[in-house]
Parts: sequence; structure tokens; C-alpha cells
Amino acid sequence: MSDKYWRRIFHPAPKEGNKMKANNLGSKIRDEFPIFKNNEKSVNGQTKPFVYLDSAVSAQKPKHVIQAMVNHLENDYGSVHRGAYGVSIRSSQMYEDTRHKVAKFIDPKINANQVVFTRGTTEALNILAYGISDVYLNENSRIVIPAIEHHANLIPWQQAALRKDCELAYISMLGKKGNQLTLNLSEAEKLITKNTKIVSLAYVGNVIGQINPIEEIIAMAKKVGSLVILDCAQSMSTHEEYLFSLGADAIAFSPHKLYGPSGIGVLAMSEELIEKLPPSTFGGGMISDVTLEESQWISGPAKFEAGTPPITEVCGLGAAIDWVEKKGRKNIHNHSSELAKIFLDGLKNINDIEVFSPESGQETIISFRHKKIHAHDMATILDSENIAMRAGHHCAWPLIRILGVDALIRCSFAAYSDRDDVEIALEAIKNASKKV
Amino acid sequence: MSDKYWRRIFHPAPKEGNKMKANNLGSKIRDEFPIFKNNEKSVNGQTKPFVYLDSAVSAQKPKHVIQAMVNHLENDYGSVHRGAYGVSIRSSQMYEDTRHKVAKFIDPKINANQVVFTRGTTEALNILAYGISDVYLNENSRIVIPAIEHHANLIPWQQAALRKDCELAYISMLGKKGNQLTLNLSEAEKLITKNTKIVSLAYVGNVIGQINPIEEIIAMAKKVGSLVILDCAQSMSTHEEYLFSLGADAIAFSPHKLYGPSGIGVLAMSEELIEKLPPSTFGGGMISDVTLEESQWISGPAKFEAGTPPITEVCGLGAAIDWVEKKGRKNIHNHSSELAKIFLDGLKNINDIEVFSPESGQETIISFRHKKIHAHDMATILDSENIAMRAGHHCAWPLIRILGVDALIRCSFAAYSDRDDVEIALEAIKNASKKV
Repeated sequence: MSDKYWRRIFHPAPKEGNKMKANNLGSKIRDEFPIFKNNEKSVNGQTKPFVYLDSAVSAQKPKHVIQAMVNHLENDYGSVHRGAYGVSIRSSQMYEDTRHKVAKFIDPKINANQVVFTRGTTEALNILAYGISDVYLNENSRIVIPAIEHHANLIPWQQAALRKDCELAYISMLGKKGNQLTLNLSEAEKLITKNTKIVSLAYVGNVIGQINPIEEIIAMAKKVGSLVILDCAQSMSTHEEYLFSLGADAIAFSPHKLYGPSGIGVLAMSEELIEKLPPSTFGGGMISDVTLEESQWISGPAKFEAGTPPITEVCGLGAAIDWVEKKGRKNIHNHSSELAKIFLDGLKNINDIEVFSPESGQETIISFRHKKIHAHDMATILDSENIAMRAGHHCAWPLIRILGVDALIRCSFAAYSDRDDVEIALEAIKNASKKV
Repeated sequence: MSDKYWRRIFHPAPKEGNKMKANNLGSKIRDEFPIFKNNEKSVNGQTKPFVYLDSAVSAQKPKHVIQAMVNHLENDYGSVHRGAYGVSIRSSQMYEDTRHKVAKFIDPKINANQVVFTRGTTEALNILAYGISDVYLNENSRIVIPAIEHHANLIPWQQAALRKDCELAYISMLGKKGNQLTLNLSEAEKLITKNTKIVSLAYVGNVIGQINPIEEIIAMAKKVGSLVILDCAQSMSTHEEYLFSLGADAIAFSPHKLYGPSGIGVLAMSEELIEKLPPSTFGGGMISDVTLEESQWISGPAKFEAGTPPITEVCGLGAAIDWVEKKGRKNIHNHSSELAKIFLDGLKNINDIEVFSPESGQETIISFRHKKIHAHDMATILDSENIAMRAGHHCAWPLIRILGVDALIRCSFAAYSDRDDVEIALEAIKNASKKV
């Protein structure tokens, strides 16, 4: 592998057909992320940069976010909504201000009272599936989801269907294999009928990175009066469409994929849902009255936030949103998807590579496998070159089985990714390929 | 108020009858907590120190914990159990190492596979109540809890009783009022009979700070074959008894009350419970197989940890345990309870004060009210002197009603509390009292 790839200062000229429209966001902002410098490796006198291409599992954190959390802990930490003194008042104010900020970040159509802080997208989807099954489903109901969903948007609906003895129908895929697969919209239209009460799907798929046709699906659902839920874990840092304005009834995302902290999630719901859904976790901060005989819940988001919430994590989320807004979600998307496109084109020149992601040029996630090197072995080979990509079933076994493989390797791009990452990764895959 | 109280350098000699056996832990370690220096207030040229006496709601964080989290984010952050590359491997190792550390911290009798990371004590108790109602309860069962429990250890059992149409029986209090109240053990013995399947109680009460007679209660429960759950939210930083060795089947606590981060909780269970209880949240990382028809769970703690866990928070918890172990839980307890005792004795010299905490000398929480100043007004008066105490119902309405009040003011001590805190708080309460 040529020396130049180890020097970030040097950027090779874009190849024909791969013209970077981009702002080259990655290199500009990389210094804001301490983890890159701290994970350079020295091998035989050569400095190997840290090539992190697994942002779809979790994004790295800029100094701005880390420092906001430290400032909070060193200056303002107090429990929220429980004290009438300085640090508690300031923490509570920060907590509610962040709720406003999150609402605005999602859609100006919604207000802060529709935003719940959970522990992650997974808990958010579980709260929805549990509560919706309680209020909206009976034995005649149908739930519709794509067969290729992440387990977090699949198992909760299996459980809801079991609980209510109702139908769970899956939208299948069109096309035979690899990157030809798309969601079968004509089947979706047949499945989404008047007894359909819920349609739930990812905006961007976590495995192959497809951008699902949410507008079409929302239109089908609204036509029959069904609720629509969007899992936005993979789209929140790159897609700025106003999802409630488009017709969504609830969305969920994870701040740790948005350059923010772990230990927190976001669930936003329509006013109807936040009013009607029952809580599934019970404790302090969510009650209007408790006697030995019975308890009553307060209204609004606090109903779903029993116990001490993730206080410092809410602070980190607020900082992450500020950071993302400053860089611009459209910029981040353009930048990440251009890198993904260059990577995809590069993969085509390597023998025995099979790509599973679509080629619209809008994806930020590229999944592939090498026909002669197992995905897990490839991940280990890449790690030896200080390149981080995830191999496995990516929490979507039904999709992996549809694809007819046992594992995929996934390469995902983010704001801090850069052209060198692409070149270094392609070179390493090419070298590995030459050895088999 | 005399000048001396504003200068931490000066420590008044202990008064007769209040001899400090103590190590004066607070002043020694106060510099480890940046929040104190950063919250000094200047009023009319006088520096008023930050007197934080609400550690029972949440403890402040030492530099050691904050720095551990920063180091993790700047050097090692990666998703756990999902990547075969450097940062993910290191994060996963840290995550599982911390599980071992937590197990050892709780009781050498248990192992890491019995420790679940939740989002807090509240979620932990909900997981238990939900799962236990599913596996152990039927319409003939009885659940027994004290009437004075925190809402987090009360409402989940109300819900379990509703779900299974079984009995929820409350252990009442002996004594008429204030600090004469104790758990009615002879009634407990009558309630805990052979159809009792669960007894759940706090080790240390969050409102009046009583240390519950857990050994007696565990003995009663074991005699009839009942499970015993201990809410250790208020005891984990000060009590080092091995609770599983004493007979507990499950315990829960919150790291944010243990000088650790928000956004995480701990649930430890017997091998039987961790094997038998079903999960209540579904998603990635907790399955052994998922098909479109059905899903199966893996065994061990991961069954209860669907989705991306609180990664940085687990790192902070590990650092908090190291910090607490270094200071010594016994030391922290002696120190905090001595300060509480001095505070309690001081309160007795102030007119119109009614104390609701017991006087064993072992408490670290003192609850009281002023007969002529509402608890909320008192908290606001104290805040104007830069003193933080919590006023309200403390998430235990049934207890507040038993006490016949509408709110209490709670003063709680921790490792960083010191003699000045006590003197300044007493002086401020005395001054407020003189003005009515």
C-alpha cells in the first residue's frame, strides 16, 4: 500500500467519474474528534491512521459534545424536577430546553411535550409496540412491517401480535439478490388494508442502507387510517425531512448515532399517541397520585420517563444537535453518500466482491461480502490495518436469510469520514483479495 | 451568620456530645469534586460555599469518574459486542470487566452473569415485577411490601397484582408519628405466609432514611419460600453487607447515587431468576434466533439488555466503584452518619422543628419540617444561602400521608459532605426560624 494513504495531508485527485461535489467535510472536521489522533497506530515506522467506517453502529463524539458533558458535570449537575436549588434548577432547565431543541430538530410541527427521552431507539420502539397493542389492537387487527427490519422494529411487533392474537404481515422484497432488492410496494399496498392499524418501518435500512419509500408507505397507511411509525436510527444525522409533516405518528432515534452520548434515546409521538398510550415503566416522576390502592399517571412525556432520567446524556444530546445543525444535515448527507459512492465504485474493481446495497448514490451505508473471504475474517484483516468495519448479521436475521448469506461486512460513512478512509479501505480489501 | 462558616479552612471544634470519631472524609476529598469550587457564590463580598445536602437524590461526581468517561470517549469509544476491531473490542472488554467488578462489589457469592445493566433502579424493579408476575404469580399469590416504599418499588407491584389478579399486602408502621415510626415486624410475620411469593423492600428508606430490618424480613420470607428483592438505591454507597449471602434473590441500585453517571442502573439476580425471568424489552443483542414467525432469547444478562447499552456510563460506573472502594463504604457510612447525627442534634435546638427520621445514629438522611415554614419555602430560603436540600413528597406519597404532612425537607449526607455543611445549614434554618 502506497505511503500517501497514510498521510492525511495528501488527497489524491478524484478519479474520473467520481468527481467530489463535496465540501470535503471529513478532513476539515476530523480534528474535532480526539479519538482519531489517539488511535493512530505505528507499524514498522509507518503511522497508520484510524479508519473508522462503522458509524452506523455508533458515531464518534466531537470535543464539543464531550466538553458540554464535562461542563455539566463540573458546574451544573443536579437531579431534574426534584430540587428548588441552583444546580437542580439549571439541570431541569437544560433538560427541558433540550426537549424543545429536539422537537424543533425533528419537525417544527411538533412541540416539546411530544418528545420523550428513553434509553435508546430500542426502548422507544418497545414503548410504542406495547402501548399501541394495548390501545389500538384487537384480534382482528393487522400490523404491517417490512421483512427486512432491524430486530428492534420486528420483535416488539411479534410480541404485540402474540399479546393481542392479531396478524403481523411482512412486506417482502422485490428482485432476486444483492443490490437489486427493493421493498415490494405493490405487495405493501395489498397488505395495508382497513384492518391495518400499524405500519412501522425504518427510514434508512441499517444493513444495506436502502432509503425506504416512506412517503409512499405513509400515503398507503393514511388512506386506511393506520398509524405509521418510523425508525430513524440510521437517518437522523443525514435526513432533515419533517417527518410528522409527512404524516408519521411516531419516530425514534438514538443520539449515540448522531455524534451524541450513549445511554439515551428519543421517542417523538403525535399528540394523540402521547395522550393515549399507557406507560410500561412505573416509578417516580410519572404519577399524578399514588395511594395504596391505585396510581394515576400524569400526562405528557414524563408519563414515559419513570425514575431519574439520563441527565448528563440529555445535555450531550443537546450539544450533538447543535453540532449537527452547524455542520448541516444536508452537508453531512452529501458528504457521506459521495464517499459511499466512491467506495462502491471502487469495490466493483475488486475480484470476488458482491455488493448488497442499492446504487442510488444516496446511501451512506455499503454492505458487501467477498466470495472467498468470510465477512468476519475480512473484518479481522481490516482491523490489522487499523480499519474498523462491522461484520455479521447486523441485528436483522430475516434480511440476512433473504439475502442468502450468513454474514455481511458493512461500511458506513459519517461527517468525519474522508477520502483517505475510502482509499485506505479499498486498498486493504484489494490486498486481502489478492492473497486468496 | 458568622464569617467562619464561609471559610472551609476553619473547622469549629466539635461540640460536647457531638464528638467526631470520624476521619473528616468530606473536607479531605472535597477538592476531587469540581462542582463545589465552581458553585461558590459571592454575596456582598462574602464567598458562600456550595452546601450540597441532597446526595440522596443524586451524588456529585469526582474528577476520577468524569476523567474516566472522557478518556473512554477520546480513546476507546466503540459499540460493544458488535465489532471485531480495536475500539469495539476494548469497549466490550471494559463493559464485561465492569460487570465482573459490579458483581464483586455486590457480593463475592454472585458472578458477572447475574448482573444486568439497566437504565436505573426504577427500570430494574420494573423488569423484576414484570418478569416475576409472569413466572411466579397466580391469582392465589400474595406480594408483600412495606407501605412506605418509594413509588418505584410500589407501583410496579400494583401493576403486577392487577395483571395477575393477586393480592398486594402492605406492611404498616408502628408508632404514631415522626421519628417513632418503625416497620411493624409482627404484622410482617403475619402477612408473609405460604402463599407469599414476593417480598420487596428498600434496604435504606429514601424519605426518612430508616435502615430496614432486612435480615428479619429475609428470614420470614425464606421460611415460607418467598423471593426477596432489595431496593438498594440508598444503601449501595454506604452499606457493604453481602446481600445475596444474606438471602436476597435480587437487588437493584443506581450508579448516579454512587458518585457515578446518570443513564445507567444495575440489577443483580439469583441464577434462578436470571434463567427464568422473561425479557420485557426486545431488540438487538438479546436473541439467539429470529425468524419471521418467532424469536428466541439468549441466556444470561444480555437477555435483558436489548439495544445499544449505556457504554460510556458503564465505564463511569466502573470508575465510581473504584473510587468508592478506595474511600471505603464503611468510612463513607461512618462519616455521613456522624454528620447526620450532628445535624439532627442541632435541629433539636431550633424552635418549631419536627424530625421524621429515626435516631439510631446510623442514618445518612434526616427528614424534618418546620411547623411555621412550609418545606418548599424552607428549601427556597436555604437555596438563597447556596444550600441545596430537597423538599416535597420524595416519590413516596403513601408514606407522606402516613406521616400526616404534605411535604418534608430532606437533608442527606455523602462522602464529600463536611462539618461546615452541617453548621451552615443549621445556622440558616435557625435564622429562618427566628424570622417567623
